[in-house]
Amino acid sequence: MHTFEPAKGHGLKHDPLNSIVAPRPIGWISSVAANGNVNLAPYSFFNLVNYKPPILVFSSNGWKDTVRNVSETGEFVWQLVSMPLAQRMNATSALLPPDVNEFDVAGLTAVPSNLVEVPRVGEARAAMECKVIEVKRLQTKDGTDVDSWMVFGEVVAVHIDKTLIVDGVYQTSLANPIARGGRTGDYFEVTSATMFDMPRPT
Amino acid sequence: MHTFEPAKGHGLKHDPLNSIVAPRPIGWISSVAANGNVNLAPYSFFNLVNYKPPILVFSSNGWKDTVRNVSETGEFVWQLVSMPLAQRMNATSALLPPDVNEFDVAGLTAVPSNLVEVPRVGEARAAMECKVIEVKRLQTKDGTDVDSWMVFGEVVAVHIDKTLIVDGVYQTSLANPIARGGRTGDYFEVTSATMFDMPRPT
Repeated sequence: MHTFEPAKGHGLKHDPLNSIVAPRPIGWISSVAANGNVNLAPYSFFNLVNYKPPILVFSSNGWKDTVRNVSETGEFVWQLVSMPLAQRMNATSALLPPDVNEFDVAGLTAVPSNLVEVPRVGEARAAMECKVIEVKRLQTKDGTDVDSWMVFGEVVAVHIDKTLIVDGVYQTSLANPIARGGRTGDYFEVTSATMFDMPRPT
Repeated sequence: MHTFEPAKGHGLKHDPLNSIVAPRPIGWISSVAANGNVNLAPYSFFNLVNYKPPILVFSSNGWKDTVRNVSETGEFVWQLVSMPLAQRMNATSALLPPDVNEFDVAGLTAVPSNLVEVPRVGEARAAMECKVIEVKRLQTKDGTDVDSWMVFGEVVAVHIDKTLIVDGVYQTSLANPIARGGRTGDYFEVTSATMFDMPRPT
């Protein structure tokens, strides 16, 4: 085994941590600032963390536009990134000034949401409208503040492309999502060919 | 679109939330109780959320053995689930009494860790020793407690099978990890065939 303590360095050409915990679902987050500026950006530290009520979290390294927006207005929308949207999602990851609307940059349609003032991506095959529960600053085990914030959002409305629902069951692979690998540029495509069934022991 | 508010029901045969945010990396967590009982269990709400220091989180619906253990002793180990370990990981998901050691049930080797007292899975191709930062009870947007706990752990030591490192770079797909889908039994396999490259815009 190659063993290391992160505090002392990894001894490799590339920090392996985000290549080991991979691939990860992508948090493609739209938000609106108090002044009305619209933002759309992908986060690779993202997941569902609770069922009832559904709670999503994403973590931002640095106080980025999205974190400032959700802190100001208490709302965001998550959207699914499927393979045909990969390039447009990637276009929204560019470092752009706060007053640039990434929907325009990436050629995406801003559709009004039902329960939040934040627009959703009309082209996304699934989206979840969220109300912010908390914006939590991360800390180390010694209680030192880290320059990272975790946003907790409760899902208040869900939109699903009806063609992804077969006999009342959402089909993950039909949506053809993509997931985030480790190094800049690494992605994984999810298809039915990669799926298998393993019933939980009783 | 099929649109619904989770608080009012999803109107489908299966709650689609964890099929939409999928596939997810698996948090295969070993822990030790204050009385010395060893536990090993998979969590599907798990992710890396920070680089420096590396921070892992997993969320448990209910006050399960793992959460009690990490609250008591302040330590845990995460291990990677690769395809050849799928059945043995699944065996550790059975509901068993606290005094049953899932390493034994699943036929896994408990190897001593370097910086924590919790054993790691010797067969795992990557593992991370963690010190608990916080065990946080989840809340709704209205401030109501949920029967779920999120564990934050700082990674203090990392173990990687050297054959997964090529020219100093960890190869996600070489490890052949599996990821969690939505419904009970749904999993996805990650291989090099599913990987693609999409450089970040400059």
